Amino acid sequence: MSQLRYDPSTDMWVVIASERGKRPHDFRIAHQEKRGGECPFCYGNEHQTPPEIAVTGRDPDIPNTPGWTVRVIPNKFPALSLEAQGINEVVHVPYKAINGIGVHEVLVESPHHDSTFGTHSIGQLKSIIAMLLQRYYDLRTNPKLKYLQFFKNSGRIAGASLEHAHCQLIATPLVPVVIATETRIATDYFQRHGRCLYCDMLEVELSGTRVVELNDDFLLFCPFASRFPYEMWIMPRRHSHDFGLITDQEISTFCHILSTGIRRLESAFDVIPYNMVLHTAPWEIGHEHYHWHLEILPRLTIVAGFEFGTGYYINPTAPELAANSLRQVEEVISQP
Amino acid sequence: MSQLRYDPSTDMWVVIASERGKRPHDFRIAHQEKRGGECPFCYGNEHQTPPEIAVTGRDPDIPNTPGWTVRVIPNKFPALSLEAQGINEVVHVPYKAINGIGVHEVLVESPHHDSTFGTHSIGQLKSIIAMLLQRYYDLRTNPKLKYLQFFKNSGRIAGASLEHAHCQLIATPLVPVVIATETRIATDYFQRHGRCLYCDMLEVELSGTRVVELNDDFLLFCPFASRFPYEMWIMPRRHSHDFGLITDQEISTFCHILSTGIRRLESAFDVIPYNMVLHTAPWEIGHEHYHWHLEILPRLTIVAGFEFGTGYYINPTAPELAANSLRQVEEVISQP
Repeated sequence: MSQLRYDPSTDMWVVIASERGKRPHDFRIAHQEKRGGECPFCYGNEHQTPPEIAVTGRDPDIPNTPGWTVRVIPNKFPALSLEAQGINEVVHVPYKAINGIGVHEVLVESPHHDSTFGTHSIGQLKSIIAMLLQRYYDLRTNPKLKYLQFFKNSGRIAGASLEHAHCQLIATPLVPVVIATETRIATDYFQRHGRCLYCDMLEVELSGTRVVELNDDFLLFCPFASRFPYEMWIMPRRHSHDFGLITDQEISTFCHILSTGIRRLESAFDVIPYNMVLHTAPWEIGHEHYHWHLEILPRLTIVAGFEFGTGYYINPTAPELAANSLRQVEEVISQP
Repeated sequence: MSQLRYDPSTDMWVVIASERGKRPHDFRIAHQEKRGGECPFCYGNEHQTPPEIAVTGRDPDIPNTPGWTVRVIPNKFPALSLEAQGINEVVHVPYKAINGIGVHEVLVESPHHDSTFGTHSIGQLKSIIAMLLQRYYDLRTNPKLKYLQFFKNSGRIAGASLEHAHCQLIATPLVPVVIATETRIATDYFQRHGRCLYCDMLEVELSGTRVVELNDDFLLFCPFASRFPYEMWIMPRRHSHDFGLITDQEISTFCHILSTGIRRLESAFDVIPYNMVLHTAPWEIGHEHYHWHLEILPRLTIVAGFEFGTGYYINPTAPELAANSLRQVEEVISQP
């Protein structure tokens, strides 16, 4: 079972997924994405995954069979688990550790092995977001869980171990340090200025040179302090701290702007590994001055010694240049 | 010229190295390490690098010629530069930016293209550390600079763009956020407990199951909250906040424990990409309760969406298991 361990020198937690117990020889294939052969996420191979948690597009009463449009399953090698218990090691001051309580699920985006957030139809994207919201509402009823991290690793370099289009959901027993920091900063800013920090950032971005796309409800832009070349954020134009409060109309406009953003990236680059990360308020009350957004982080540079040592990222492409390139790229219009 | 840009939502800085101005097509070879052909760090090719800053083992009055044992040169594509000036863009509240003032140097560890921290002789390692200290003492006299980050990226996956054994030095105009946080935590801990946090960690580690190697002056161990599988730290056993205060005897014992640590890693794995990062107190006074150490971060896992979203790392190898494997591995004793 896994543990969450606290490093008192950095005020950070680490998930020690010790049941994996990887010894040196287990890492020999760590950097290879599984290709060809039987894909456990393709139609007909549903029995190769743990039993499904939820599906759309197919009768849920005949589980683990083909015909679904979106499918959620437990991660076969979960980083966190509701069954975690029993820290055997005596933990000495100044260290501390807690059980690795949590949930780790996989959201299979489509039955089509090679589809992407750029090639999914808008209808398929809406099914993905609807499923994410369903899991979000379900998991937040569990009092052991404090936050749900929705993310996607696309491409081997960005951490994907399977090719077939999928996202991941990890629910954590603590508010993650990144979110705790961001919500504290947003609350402090509101108390000092009487305004939302992110709404102020939006106001600057809307009139600036870093806009990639704009619609009624969302702005897609390359942020001022982009850590990664061609980094893009999607931010709701109305103030909203909680992704769970997205409206039906916003789901539609969100899917459109997400689709065009990924299509622009995929048109600009032959191969574009990226991570996609949702930032939203923790479930506990008191974070109304936060402002949810989605971050798209292309992995064209390598996070290395300087970044780990200093916490500063080196980005070789100014976001103004990146936004200009992404605006100019000929967007592939065709959709399935 | 590069800029340091501040993200008010995360309280973090980013180096926008905009003179590189990388457009999409510039990234096609970004993940390939330069191999074969003319190596600019090998004997006879000294003219391919910018003019050298310092050497050992060869008359400095005949610069940029062979015969040296360790050589320091400016980075050809510096992330920061003392010539940086002129932020042209009007920066709107809540954003801010400063000029990318700094220094970015390359320390070529050896004339031998394929040598490593595991195969360098102890004498060669001492020359490397002596050169690092020489640059450290020199750069800290510049009032524009606040910190020197010494690091090594070894292997393509860990960010190395050239094969030939080399480290990097980046001096920054601000105390990096990681170091600012760690020194604040260490100072707070001292004020609460009257002891050094790291000395307390050392006491636990010395009696525990995460020791890899111990000598008179240093402990090599896998830290309790290791972020990476087979992560190792080298920590001085006597309290010392500043790497620059290392004694001649400690240089020798440090080189021995660093050499054995890397040899153990290289024996345990066929290929072991890693980052090595020095953590030491900022040059300004007031950080005497910090405790310098060297972190060795193997890159066997991929930092991806979950890590960026939450700030939590997932480590599939408990440090107790890692330390046990590294102790048991047959260390390659032969040294050149």
